[in-house]
Formats: sequence, structure tokens, C-alpha cells
Amino acid sequence: MGYYEVEFEPVGRRGKCRDDESVLDCAHRLGVGIVSLCGGRGKFHCCKIQIIKGSVSKPTKSEIEFFSSEELKDGYRLACQTYLKSNCKIKVSLESLTTPQRLQLEGLEIGVKLNPPVKSCDIKLSPPSMVDLRSDDERIMDELNHQFNLSCRKFDIDVLKNMSSLLRSSRWEARVFVRDDEVVSISSKHSSGLGLAVDLGTTKIAGYLLDLDSGKTLSSSGVMNPQISYGEDIVSRITYAMESPAKKKKLQEVVVNTLNSLTSDLCRRANVEKERIVEAVIVGNTVMHHLLLDLPVDQLAVSPFVPAVQNSLDVKSRDIGLNIAPGAYIHLLPNIAGFVGADHVAMLLATERIWKDDDLVIALDIGTNTEVSLIDNGDITSVSCASGPAFEGAHIKDGMRATNGAIERLQLIGDEVKYQTIGKVSPVGLCGSGILDAIAQLYLAGVISRDGKMNDHPRMRFHNNQKEFVLVNEKENGSPAITITQKDVREIQLAKGAIRSGIDVLLRERGHFEQEVKKVIIAGAFGSYINVASAVSIGMLPPLPLNRFQQVGNAAGIGAKLALLSTEERFKAEAIAHRASYIELAASPDFEKIFLRATYLG
Amino acid sequence: MGYYEVEFEPVGRRGKCRDDESVLDCAHRLGVGIVSLCGGRGKFHCCKIQIIKGSVSKPTKSEIEFFSSEELKDGYRLACQTYLKSNCKIKVSLESLTTPQRLQLEGLEIGVKLNPPVKSCDIKLSPPSMVDLRSDDERIMDELNHQFNLSCRKFDIDVLKNMSSLLRSSRWEARVFVRDDEVVSISSKHSSGLGLAVDLGTTKIAGYLLDLDSGKTLSSSGVMNPQISYGEDIVSRITYAMESPAKKKKLQEVVVNTLNSLTSDLCRRANVEKERIVEAVIVGNTVMHHLLLDLPVDQLAVSPFVPAVQNSLDVKSRDIGLNIAPGAYIHLLPNIAGFVGADHVAMLLATERIWKDDDLVIALDIGTNTEVSLIDNGDITSVSCASGPAFEGAHIKDGMRATNGAIERLQLIGDEVKYQTIGKVSPVGLCGSGILDAIAQLYLAGVISRDGKMNDHPRMRFHNNQKEFVLVNEKENGSPAITITQKDVREIQLAKGAIRSGIDVLLRERGHFEQEVKKVIIAGAFGSYINVASAVSIGMLPPLPLNRFQQVGNAAGIGAKLALLSTEERFKAEAIAHRASYIELAASPDFEKIFLRATYLG
Repeated sequence: MGYYEVEFEPVGRRGKCRDDESVLDCAHRLGVGIVSLCGGRGKFHCCKIQIIKGSVSKPTKSEIEFFSSEELKDGYRLACQTYLKSNCKIKVSLESLTTPQRLQLEGLEIGVKLNPPVKSCDIKLSPPSMVDLRSDDERIMDELNHQFNLSCRKFDIDVLKNMSSLLRSSRWEARVFVRDDEVVSISSKHSSGLGLAVDLGTTKIAGYLLDLDSGKTLSSSGVMNPQISYGEDIVSRITYAMESPAKKKKLQEVVVNTLNSLTSDLCRRANVEKERIVEAVIVGNTVMHHLLLDLPVDQLAVSPFVPAVQNSLDVKSRDIGLNIAPGAYIHLLPNIAGFVGADHVAMLLATERIWKDDDLVIALDIGTNTEVSLIDNGDITSVSCASGPAFEGAHIKDGMRATNGAIERLQLIGDEVKYQTIGKVSPVGLCGSGILDAIAQLYLAGVISRDGKMNDHPRMRFHNNQKEFVLVNEKENGSPAITITQKDVREIQLAKGAIRSGIDVLLRERGHFEQEVKKVIIAGAFGSYINVASAVSIGMLPPLPLNRFQQVGNAAGIGAKLALLSTEERFKAEAIAHRASYIELAASPDFEKIFLRATYLG
Repeated sequence: MGYYEVEFEPVGRRGKCRDDESVLDCAHRLGVGIVSLCGGRGKFHCCKIQIIKGSVSKPTKSEIEFFSSEELKDGYRLACQTYLKSNCKIKVSLESLTTPQRLQLEGLEIGVKLNPPVKSCDIKLSPPSMVDLRSDDERIMDELNHQFNLSCRKFDIDVLKNMSSLLRSSRWEARVFVRDDEVVSISSKHSSGLGLAVDLGTTKIAGYLLDLDSGKTLSSSGVMNPQISYGEDIVSRITYAMESPAKKKKLQEVVVNTLNSLTSDLCRRANVEKERIVEAVIVGNTVMHHLLLDLPVDQLAVSPFVPAVQNSLDVKSRDIGLNIAPGAYIHLLPNIAGFVGADHVAMLLATERIWKDDDLVIALDIGTNTEVSLIDNGDITSVSCASGPAFEGAHIKDGMRATNGAIERLQLIGDEVKYQTIGKVSPVGLCGSGILDAIAQLYLAGVISRDGKMNDHPRMRFHNNQKEFVLVNEKENGSPAITITQKDVREIQLAKGAIRSGIDVLLRERGHFEQEVKKVIIAGAFGSYINVASAVSIGMLPPLPLNRFQQVGNAAGIGAKLALLSTEERFKAEAIAHRASYIELAASPDFEKIFLRATYLG
């Protein structure tokens, strides 16, 4: 009997898999929820997985019948029929996951004066006659410009294709959607136009469907970014994209496919047709932005890391293959720099009313990449910190993403470990906030020194040649122990050091002391779930009174919504991006020293 | 031995085919030039034809090997291997035609002040550095707006895809093509931008490739409109398109494919790459315009025949599949009415300097559909006349299109017929100008009465139960006789009656007598080749002194060129279209009477 290392995506769970257990059994043992209706007989084809790396047993008859030869070539398999033959990385199909990932969807809702860039106009026309021979386009344009005082000058070509038959079947009444000087959609019904807002993260994608008449969010949903299979962080995505134009195109393709299914899902939940979506706003970091549009990313791999595109963009949805109203545009907010993107602009936009009246504010969006801005009397200075995926549970022995069974809160009371898991089920591993609590608690208890060294403790043991602190032991759990290893501590030191050194450089460059900071705005899923006290304890965030911190949830998503609902908010976003200057951390004097100091705990 | 009726497209030659002669032999006997290199042994596959209607012999081994099963299903065959089994309509592949059709490409060249809507700007940028972190788009935009005083605000998405690598490989020097506020193309070379002008006729397509820096025409070429296989005139095209959306789409597809090969041909002749074409202008009648864009034509089939689109349009070339510079636009001039299209506007634009200083001018573009405008002190009134394809040689017993062997000029001197053929070869049939001369000469000699009845004459004979006048007999020719039948006379009476009644209605509506007309501008291929005296003799055109007539060639094509070279010309075209009002002939009082009177000769 042998063992292989296995890693399950997108939940991020790692573990050992015996060569005589099926991938399904191994997944269940490690707490990865894969649907299994037939009990492992390959009958219902519900436990679909994809082998990303490594070799496995040959496909069985049942799999050969179910999958196309192309799918088999791409590594698609059934978990219950597959056995490992080497270390493997395995992706579980989203439809095969029993527990949807917990994504950050709710957030800081800010009232906004509705003034969507796409206006809806109800028109009633007189039909053509021998004394009124105006064409259909001219007839509509006259009505729009006279009745609604617009300066409409053109029609999207796809609108023109359906317009004439629609007018004739709807007795010359219609609702017309106008964007600037262009008709982008026409409908025979008087139902409101819809908008799609998307926060396209490196790891997660959050989508929102909005009613543009009321400003209400009709549905929201989150999915994993499928590009994860081609690289965990933005640097590895860039590397992959640079290998060939086909690979870059592939990254666009998978994300557009996912956006299309996300859109269908949002529409199904709200019981509306996706053709009613007349505008979309998508925000992401610069790399996500460029890959979505199939723009070059090579220049993001070399100093001085300038983006191909920085200004806001309006792209026809059909030009990237997003299936919404045929004439609709996708608006992309401006980027600030190669590693501070439109998502950060959206976050600053959403939190503007929090920071605008204070003279010194730090706003940060913690993720696989962490963007930090210092807002100093309205001047914005931004940096980008390669915090890595440790807070997403990656590179941590028992780390996992925030899904059922993840320890999200943890306390050390005496020698006892108290914890709380997502879904209140048996613990499977640690998600970001749990890891942060664990390190903070161990540091506060003196179990870890300032330099990260693990000291002796009744729960400390040697395992696989390294020290590890047992949070949950095998007996307690009935499954593998959950521990924090010396290596895990080092990973967190690097991650938190990256964030803290970004903050430190910003303060130094602007000539401020940390105590002067009036507010720290923490955005992003992870940032919203963390115990801020823990983050301050280990020195990830500066030592300020806790009431100066504000956790705002997915502010980037809110920013995208705002840009969907109001032209003024788009102008504000432009202004924010233009006001922001960027500092390249690596080029900052003494950066190595600052970073090294920031890796110390406390 | 039996005979079948055969018609060869696109040359328009009709005749009888024996059941024991191959289609190739029959074509050669009838004077239709099909390439034949192997002498009929099916060896070189050069005599490619397509059976449009009727049934023929089964494919031979040689054909089965050469054609795909799909091509065979679509009726593709080799002329040397095929024998008729019924009356047939056969299309000769363009590459298999030995004599290219003579198309009207030269025309009235008018000097125009160059001010193309697409400007070219040579830029030299400083590369990004740690102190200048501007993105590539921002860097270019700054340069354009400061150095060239432009208000550039956006980039085409396809330009963005190549821009960054181009800048880096060309040492930050480039030529940028800007249209209004948008960058539509970028090139590392400093060669001039090119423009494509197309006159998209119902029967023929004329294309011109222009240098936008010099305004010079680099190459020009003409091809048949492939939609002919789906209907000879606009009404039959509408009927076909209305049968199903797929059929309408098919009409777009075949014409776009032909435009793409026409473009490649133009570029090959000028030895340039088609990616250098940064703008296209396409003019056509309203039906051609709508079918090119896959717009609905149903409303053009019912009174009051209003177009879906009347205003000028700018469509991204990729949105209809035209392969030029990826970010380039196609500009479509405005239409006047359902049956007076952008090609007529282009013709009026090109001839403006001829008509603008006269108080009463008639301008007409004779084709399968004939558009006539009366310009009365700057007011433009237009009609559309269904003149039909008789002047293209169709529906005329020995009619054919203007290609080698067609009689183009004819005189009756005593009992003798003098004629001149295109290419100075043996006569094969009559093209439009030849038919017109023949009818005029016979009328002037009294062989045909005013009402079109044929009288006795030594060259008159009875054949197939109708009277026919022998222009060229079998003996003279060594091939079938060329005659004018009583039915031919009737066809020409209808065609010329349609045109003349249009002129008459216009004059009556505007309260003028024909003698007041100062100029008659005749545009179009046929109109340029005709003997105006003949046209006046039979009463197709009003009886005015011959020096008042001006034959201007393909003025629509010239108009398209002007719109390519100058923004002011586009504004003028808009103004012309807005000034033009349209009269529906069928709804004009007493139209039947006027038409009937106009069918009389003289």
C-alpha cells in the first residue's frame, strides 16, 4: 500500500491518498464534499472531476461511455472510478461539489442617486404611411430626440436586425434603451432594463444582477475563477499566458464561459431573461482585466510593470462573447497601475464616503494580491503587495478555502483549543481567518516567538521532521489531526509581512506616523471575516485602537454596482484613478529591510 | 436526340442544348467562354459549373474524386462531364470564365480636398520608466491629443490586443490611425492608410482600393454579385430572404465572401496587405444595403415600402465579417427610401458639381432597378422604376451581359445590319446597348411601329410561332442566328416605359415640361455605353438636344470614393439624402395611363 499527495481544487484541500482508495473515498475522508449518488458504482456520473496534474488509473468502461474522447483527453473522470498513480492535483466540477463555497456577497450598501448610463424610454410611434415614409430608425430617433430630449444618433447593428419586426408585432410601442447617443437595446415589453455587476477576483468571482429602474439587487451569486486551474496567483497566470497566444486566449475563454454561466444562474434566480441585461460593469485587478479582454500581459512581467490599458473602457459584450442583450456594452473601470487594478478603484469608490472626510486613511483589499492605498487629504497613493494565497488556505498544511468544515475562529485557553467551523460541522482544516487566529493566539501565549520560532508546549510535537502545534488531534476528530507547522508560521510571516511593509512604505513615503491614521478600511472576503485584533496582534495591521478599523465586505463589488447605477459614479471612479499615484514597492529604498522587519510578529 | 433549354449565368446567355452534347460543348457553341484545358477529359477540373435549376447526368468518377460530397449536393460539376436531362440554369464559376465581364470601373473623377475621416498620426514615444508609469493607452492618447491636437478618447479593442507588443518591437514609434475620438488601427510601418470603396449593385460589384494619403486609386476590380443565384432582381431577392432567416443570412454570407475575395484581389493587384485598409465605404440600393447588414427586408415588400434604416451607419468591419484592419469601420451612406438607396445618394454626391448650378436637372442611374431624381433648384425628388434586367440581356431571346461576343453597337443601313462586338470577335448575342440600338434602328426604319408591332421586311421571319428580325443569320455566323423577336420588343417597351414614366411623373409632380430640363445625367454601366440618340429615338429618354445629356459612368462608385476621402463629402451626402423626397410611382394618380403611354416607341 502506498500514499500519494493530493490537492483538491477549488476548495484548496491537501492531503494523502492511498493507492487503493478511490479519489471519491479519499475526498470524503479529507472532508471534500463531492456528490455521490450511486455509492461509487459509476452509475450516475455525478462525481465529475478533472485531473489537472499527475497520473491516475485508466478510464473504466462506464467512464468511456459517459465522457467524450476529448473530455477524457482533457482529464475528465469520475471520482468513484479513479485511483491515483502519482501525486495529483484534482479539480472538482462545480456541479459535483456538495457544499457551495462561502463567498463574500453581501457588503456595504450605499444609497446612490439613480442615473444609469443606459436610459429606458417608452415610445409610441405612428406607423408609416404614404404621407409619412420615414424609415424605422429615423422614426424612433425622431421620437427619442423630441419626446425625451436626447441626442440619439445611432443604433447598434444587432438592435437594427430585430427592430423592424418588433415594432410591427408590438403595434409600434416599445421600450428603447439608450446609452449616450446610441440605442443599445429594444424590447416590446415595458419591463425594466437590467444590469450585471461583476467583481472578477483572482480566486473568486462575485456577480450581481440589478434592476436599473429601482437600483435593487435582484440576485447575487459567487463562483470560483476557473483560471485557478492554470495558476493560483496573478504571476503564475501571467506566466501561463505568456507561453503562447493560444494559452492566453484559453484563459479568456474559461473566464467568459464562467461569466456566462454565472449570468444564467443570476437570471434563473431572479426569473428573468438574460437578454434584458443592457449593461455590465466588470471590475478586477489589472491582470484579470487584461486576461478578460485578451490583452497582452507580457509587459506586466517586467519592470516597470505598466498596464497595456489604464483608462476605462467600453467594450461591446459580443466582442468578448458575453451573452447579454446583443447591443449591450461592458464597462470596465480604469486601472491605476500594473498591479493596482479597477477592483481597487471600485473599492475606493464604494468607500469614498468613509474616507473622504478624514485627513489620513488606509484602505486595503486583502486577497491573493493585496492592494493598499493611503489617502492623505484626498491624495491617493497605492501599492501592491504580493501577499500570496496563504490566507486563502494555500501553502498551509491544513489550510483550505472558506467552505464547510473550515475552522474560522480559534482561541487558545490554557492548553485547550476552542474553535468554530463553517457550517458547524467537524473540522476539516483551517481557512484564512482561522489561520490568523491560530498564529495570533500562539504568539500571544508565547508558543511562537517574535521571530516566528516555535517553542515547547504540551501540544507541540515533531512530525515529518518538523515541529507542529496540534490544534485538533486525530482522536478528537476521527480523521487526520489539524496542526500548525513551523513552515505554516513562516508562510504567514511572509504574507503578513508583505501587507504590513506595504503600509509602512506608504506612511514613510508620505511622511506620516502610523498613529496619525484615522481609519483603516479593510475590504474583501477574507478581510471581512478576520478578527482584526488577531491581525493587529501579529502585526499584519498597525497597532491602532480597534475602533479605527472598518471591515466593509466586498466593496469592489459594491463599486461595480455603483458604476452600473450612476454616470456620476463613473466620473468619480475616473477621478479617483487619475488622482491615484503608484509606488513600486520593490523599487522603494530599503524595501528589503522594511519587509524583513515586517515579517516579525507583534 | 432531344433538346433542352439552357441558361448560363452570370453571362446571361440562353440557348438550346442537345442531350448528347456536354455542357462544355454547348457553352462553347453558344459562345460562353468556359476554360477547358484538358479537352473535355475531366482531367484538369478547370471547367467548374454549378447546376442552379434542372436535372443532369450523374457525376462521373473523375467528378466524385474532385468534388466533396457537399459540393456535389450543391450541384457543383465539371462542364465537360455533364449532360442535361431537363431544362437547366447553370452558373459558371468565375474562375472558369475565359472572358472577364466588362464592368464599368472608370468614371467621372472629381478632385476632392483630402480630409479622410481616418487620420494618420506618426508618433514617437518615450518608453515607460520608474518615473513615468503611464500605461500604453494613456501614453499614446497623451501624445495624440497634445502633438496632434486631437480629442482621442478610446481605442478599438482589437487595436489594444496588438498595441503593446508592437510599440515594444518598433522602439516606441508607430503610425496611429484615428477616427473621430477612436484609435482604429496602429502600424509599425509609416506606410499610408488605405480605403476600400465599393459599389454594391444588384448585378455587379465594383471595388476600388484607395491611398488615403494621396487620394489615388491603387487598383479597381469588378465581380458579379453572387446573390444573382438566388434571384435576378431586388424583388426576387426580397422574396428569397423572406422565406427564412437562414436564407436571409445566406444572402449576407455570399456577398460578404465575395467582398472579401474582391478585397484580396484589389490588394494583390496593388501589392499591399489588406490589414492596411483602415476604412471602407459601401454603397448599394436599399435592398443590397439591408441584405449586406442582415437587416430585415420584409417591410420592403409591403406598402409603403419603408426601409429599416435610412440614416448613414458606421459598422465595425468585424461585425459583418469583412476582413480588413481589425478595428476598421464600414461607413454606409444614407438611404433615401425603400427603393432609392445609398448608391443613388452616392451618384448625386459625385455629380453634384454638374447639377448644382442648373435650375432643372434629371439624374438617373439605369440598372435592373432604375432610380431617377429631378433636381429643381436644389430640391431633390426621387422615384424608383422597376426597369428589370432586360437591358442586362435577360428575358431577351439572344440577350446576354456585356462580355466578349456581345453586339454593343448596331446600325441598319438599307437591308444590311452593321454591328460591332465586344472584343471584336464573332457575335454571340446582344448586350443592353446593342438591343437598344437594334430596337431604335428598326423603329426608325419603320420595321417596328410606334405600338411595337413588327412589320414585314426581307429579314423578318417566323420562327417558333413568332415573328423575328434576323440581325445575324446562321450562315454568316457559323452558329445560331441572332434575332430580335416580337417578344423582345415587348420586353424593351416595358423596360423603357418604366424609366420614361418615372421621368414623366417627376416632371408632372414638380410642374415642369420636359423642354425645361437643362441637363440629363446618365449614370451606371449600361447608361454609359448606350447610344443616347437611340434611347431618345425610342422614347426611353425625353426628346432633348443631345448636348444636354451627360454620361458619367459609375458615379455611385465615385461617390463612395469621395465619402472615403473626405468628411465634408459625408456631410454633403447626409444633406442630399435629407433634402430628397420620394414619390411612390404606383401611388401616383393616373400612373397606369402614364406608364402605358410611355411604352409607346418614339
